[in-house]
Amino acid sequence: MRVVEILLVEAPHQPGNMAKVLTVVGDHGITVEGLNAVRRLDKDTIWELTIEYDDSLNIAEIVAEINSLPETLVTGKSDRVFNRHKGGKIHTISKIDINSLEVLRDVYTPGVARVCEAIKASPEKITQYTNIQNTVAIVTDGSAILGLGNIGPEAGLPVMEGKAAIMAELTGLSGIPILIDEKDPEKIIETITNIAPSFGAILLEDIKAPECFTIEEKLISTISKPVFHDDQHGTAIVVLAALLTASRRVGIDLKNRVFGQIGLGAAGMGICRLLMDYGVKEVLGSDIHLDAKDRLNDIGGKAVSIEQLMASADIVVATTGVKGLIKAEMVRDGQIIMALTNPDPEIEPEVALAQGASYASDGKTVNNMLAFPGLFKGTLDAGVKHITHEMKIAAAEMLSSLAKEDALIPSVLNQHAHDEVTRAVYEAAIKT
Amino acid sequence: MRVVEILLVEAPHQPGNMAKVLTVVGDHGITVEGLNAVRRLDKDTIWELTIEYDDSLNIAEIVAEINSLPETLVTGKSDRVFNRHKGGKIHTISKIDINSLEVLRDVYTPGVARVCEAIKASPEKITQYTNIQNTVAIVTDGSAILGLGNIGPEAGLPVMEGKAAIMAELTGLSGIPILIDEKDPEKIIETITNIAPSFGAILLEDIKAPECFTIEEKLISTISKPVFHDDQHGTAIVVLAALLTASRRVGIDLKNRVFGQIGLGAAGMGICRLLMDYGVKEVLGSDIHLDAKDRLNDIGGKAVSIEQLMASADIVVATTGVKGLIKAEMVRDGQIIMALTNPDPEIEPEVALAQGASYASDGKTVNNMLAFPGLFKGTLDAGVKHITHEMKIAAAEMLSSLAKEDALIPSVLNQHAHDEVTRAVYEAAIKT
Repeated sequence: MRVVEILLVEAPHQPGNMAKVLTVVGDHGITVEGLNAVRRLDKDTIWELTIEYDDSLNIAEIVAEINSLPETLVTGKSDRVFNRHKGGKIHTISKIDINSLEVLRDVYTPGVARVCEAIKASPEKITQYTNIQNTVAIVTDGSAILGLGNIGPEAGLPVMEGKAAIMAELTGLSGIPILIDEKDPEKIIETITNIAPSFGAILLEDIKAPECFTIEEKLISTISKPVFHDDQHGTAIVVLAALLTASRRVGIDLKNRVFGQIGLGAAGMGICRLLMDYGVKEVLGSDIHLDAKDRLNDIGGKAVSIEQLMASADIVVATTGVKGLIKAEMVRDGQIIMALTNPDPEIEPEVALAQGASYASDGKTVNNMLAFPGLFKGTLDAGVKHITHEMKIAAAEMLSSLAKEDALIPSVLNQHAHDEVTRAVYEAAIKT
Repeated sequence: MRVVEILLVEAPHQPGNMAKVLTVVGDHGITVEGLNAVRRLDKDTIWELTIEYDDSLNIAEIVAEINSLPETLVTGKSDRVFNRHKGGKIHTISKIDINSLEVLRDVYTPGVARVCEAIKASPEKITQYTNIQNTVAIVTDGSAILGLGNIGPEAGLPVMEGKAAIMAELTGLSGIPILIDEKDPEKIIETITNIAPSFGAILLEDIKAPECFTIEEKLISTISKPVFHDDQHGTAIVVLAALLTASRRVGIDLKNRVFGQIGLGAAGMGICRLLMDYGVKEVLGSDIHLDAKDRLNDIGGKAVSIEQLMASADIVVATTGVKGLIKAEMVRDGQIIMALTNPDPEIEPEVALAQGASYASDGKTVNNMLAFPGLFKGTLDAGVKHITHEMKIAAAEMLSSLAKEDALIPSVLNQHAHDEVTRAVYEAAIKT
């Protein structure tokens, strides 16, 4: 498991001291995420050094090495991440200043009764006079939180609040974390169905496969509101966007090539489905689980071994969580390979390219945060009840079209990209 | 059913014109809520005249009468109430500006994983690093929305958003409307239990009796979080506050007097329970429903007829919804009578006073909005799992102590009162 740590390093105001620290860090294969001066003392500077490393590494050894340098001292660890979480990341506010009895009596009793009656008489008015069409439930059972696994819904709340904060910042949507204390898919479905009237749409998040498939499928068919499992389709949209860009760059037509998906969990199945919907005719997939293979065959793909897949596919995407799974000798000339497992991919891009791949990348920039905010905003603005594959493809095509020359997709905090995804999804929604 | 309407009245800039309009309105027994100049034209002023009247009244006749005055014209109805509801009354915002990759990577992946792990290791940290201890679910099944009855959860959303907006404005709490599409109490209980991890506390709202009793009781015993049905206990707290003030003014000790509750629905039962908890030894109650009487007897009260009640009780509270239910001749010398049905009480205060009541009031100022914001804020700040009767009584005593000379309780938008209720509840909570 990859962790982020922020060391506080004290060093005199002299050039070269932090270079030595970064050399120690680099020698251990640790990624530097950031280096910021946080305080200037009389003679020394306190630096915040943000590093990312595998937790199998003994960080105490690195700290000791830095301390053994003549001028630098690790004085502690920064609580920056925790400080940024203090008191939580979201809150509900009133859109109206309730500063007089007149306002109060309009927005609460007795005035509010007229609005209730108007909605009772014309149910569609709920979208006009409440925040519902701006509200997305972010629902998890805590069974697959990030790479941490089944840590339970409460421990997953910071992720749900993070998604809500991102939605609020990028699109103004109101994300509502809903933590479900239940693991039985039938009970989860029933619970979500019972509270569905509260929200404009439902984002399923970090629910493990295969339960996530049943839950999403059932909810889509029974609730007349948009339901979307981000781990499946958010990832798929961003991967399709990246593949569209890569295909364009190497001059091939994605639809007429053989696509191979290694790993048929939530993300893998989402990718296979979306590529089929996009028009890719031949979709191969491999997985170590028999039921995962069956699922792919059921939707018209073809389950094969990883060796067969690598031998036949022109485009390969891997989402297995297994570092180094794709051996160099499996790579064929001209293949496009996206090995998305973070932080250590199934094959390093340089290795794949050296073996003749025409394009290779890892998962560092493939962040589904590029998709879900605009996807939900466009969907809710359009007032449609389902997120169709046309809408997902519109989002992917827009993201691909906005990629700068040096990247497959836009950067995650590119507000323009989120606005354009919103617009593309909206337009696709009102067309279908 | 009482409704609020806002007429737009055009009148020349001359003294006396609006006086004539108000005379017409007054002659029909219509209450004027407000009169504001909203636009000055060349010769005329456009006035917004807010009136409250029973919807059995034909407002078109009054409009015709105003139009028959020589100088004034009703040009239409104002959409002020609806305008104030446009787009809803609440929304979720991020507490953090996500304006750099560093911030993003702290509040979302990869940084957030450390916070998830910290909560997994020490579950109590959820209150420190998420907004949960600031979050209150406002749950309804839509079965008893205001005086409108069973209009369904969606049509009740404006009320839930109103409560959330009030909470946000007065205490900074995040209210989350949860609309439950289910009427079976067992299913409602199961649904709320399943999503309970999402919130710091649960406010049950506008759920009809007798289901509300079962639902609240079961949830309190099974969920280790504060659960509170406002229609029962919010009302009870404010009524107790008003009774404490009235008793003080007439110089009696509430605990040693016979209390009579007319109407044993949600509010009535809540009042009886809280008065017993406060220490009132003899609690009588009357209701037309046998099961309601049984409920009172079960908790140690004594169900009697309304005639018996009026003949024995020193203090009478009525929450029946039936205008004029208490006949003048039933009133005894020295009784304290609070006839709370809005807008038309069970007995007009003047009538009760003329019959010898020592204190009489109606329900115009008894608004449970005085209780729930501070009650939840104090409870959540204290981090306790139950709202005890000591906490409710502390809130009532505080409200009573803050009443100005001319009122039984503070006014609803008195921020100081809400802060003091918060403090009183907090202190009672950490003591118990």
